[in-house]
Amino acid sequence: MAEHAQPLQSIERLSLNQITTDRWSLREAVEGCARAEVPWIALWRHKVAEAGLAESKRLVQDAGLRVSSLCRGGMFPAATAAERQARIDDNRRAVDEAAELGADVLVLVCGPAPDKDIAAARRMVEEGIEQLMPYAESCGVKLGIEPLHPMYAAERSVINTLAQANTIAERYKPEQVGVVVDVFHVWWDPDLYAQIARASGRILGFHVSDWLVPVPDLLMGRGMMGDGVIDFRRIRQAVETAGYFGPIEVEIFNQTIWDMPGDEALALMKQRYLEHV
Amino acid sequence: MAEHAQPLQSIERLSLNQITTDRWSLREAVEGCARAEVPWIALWRHKVAEAGLAESKRLVQDAGLRVSSLCRGGMFPAATAAERQARIDDNRRAVDEAAELGADVLVLVCGPAPDKDIAAARRMVEEGIEQLMPYAESCGVKLGIEPLHPMYAAERSVINTLAQANTIAERYKPEQVGVVVDVFHVWWDPDLYAQIARASGRILGFHVSDWLVPVPDLLMGRGMMGDGVIDFRRIRQAVETAGYFGPIEVEIFNQTIWDMPGDEALALMKQRYLEHV
Repeated sequence: MAEHAQPLQSIERLSLNQITTDRWSLREAVEGCARAEVPWIALWRHKVAEAGLAESKRLVQDAGLRVSSLCRGGMFPAATAAERQARIDDNRRAVDEAAELGADVLVLVCGPAPDKDIAAARRMVEEGIEQLMPYAESCGVKLGIEPLHPMYAAERSVINTLAQANTIAERYKPEQVGVVVDVFHVWWDPDLYAQIARASGRILGFHVSDWLVPVPDLLMGRGMMGDGVIDFRRIRQAVETAGYFGPIEVEIFNQTIWDMPGDEALALMKQRYLEHV
Repeated sequence: MAEHAQPLQSIERLSLNQITTDRWSLREAVEGCARAEVPWIALWRHKVAEAGLAESKRLVQDAGLRVSSLCRGGMFPAATAAERQARIDDNRRAVDEAAELGADVLVLVCGPAPDKDIAAARRMVEEGIEQLMPYAESCGVKLGIEPLHPMYAAERSVINTLAQANTIAERYKPEQVGVVVDVFHVWWDPDLYAQIARASGRILGFHVSDWLVPVPDLLMGRGMMGDGVIDFRRIRQAVETAGYFGPIEVEIFNQTIWDMPGDEALALMKQRYLEHV
């Protein structure tokens, strides 16, 4: 087995993906990060829309936070050419928002198939990224392809392994398109370490949450780091060996954590991050 | 896209995996198959134990059924050598039962990791199969490695792709160790068709159920064929091109189907099999 990374000594790379504190508005999440001295935040588009783009930017800047990524673009496959074009148009707006917010990366959740032909949907994803990339590059925003766990193949994304994401990303320059490694989605993959190594220089994000046993819910069943079976430190070692030392986002869909007071969730997140990631 | 197979013209390859009618005892399942003229049945060990091995054999023979497989061996990884040996001992008993029942194949659900080291658990699976194989061969029972969906990696099996199963099976002769293709577990895999082709001559079983959208439950959320998104006919075409023309098991964990009268479940299964598989 590869040598494990040393524990993290500070929270300087820690980013709150704001879905982890879903009850908080963008303003509340920004203020919560400032109180907890969490230096990074990952924003979701629907939260930005609620607060307004200019106000979101101002809030983040005034708090001295940095935006690790904007969630999310993608959702490329659709039954008709017109609908696929509409998705591209929406992705361009997401790129605009990411640029305005100072996010280097737009995370792509690539979308499910519109029918039973998953291979065709995968080609639509490739075509969508090909169409979107020049605009993103012109705005200085990198596209981060996030493979989603195979259990989401029918509902959220037909890109389900890091190998798929790498194959698409390698068609582009690393400053155009890369991959996002979310341990919840990829921890099970027998090819994980080879694919992380293959992604060297192209990793645009590293997301953490834990895999609970038993899994309480398909969507809302992610756990706080340390509550499940994922070997974070080994995966972080691999990601760092592949050259990624950027922000580490904590992204947890879990009703129990959502029901916690936000400040408590952040305190727990900081503690578990230092203990387990 | 590959040309799709022609619809099946009869139910001569149809097998009831008895978990699909979980409320039925083995006797009731055998009698139900006989009434419905389903020619094959796949038995589960706990149901055989309830009925008694000799009585199970007699019931199946008297009804003129053939046993497509016995479910299940496996569960190899464990924390201690003594516990791993106990698992091997139990697998030998499973081989004995398969031989007695006239099942050519013991299906292996390989087991989860006892800790966070999934790579070590995968090695334990390889070692377990290596230990078990000579005994199985001596009994005339083939070992069928069934990759389970990655969402079961922490709870049921660390063998999660057909690629993994093929890599292990290829160490042996096709009459010793092969793979079982269950569409529910593998339909999402971007490497599916290449791995089915790679498994040529080694496919020991083909299982069908559907992937529902949304997934109602992690374990109990499988659907009747036609109720979900799986392209059965394309996968069956690939499996047949790889040389498999044996029984096709319908294996559905679904409370709604379990709550149906068994005869109705079998009637529906036959209809959907001819329409969709």
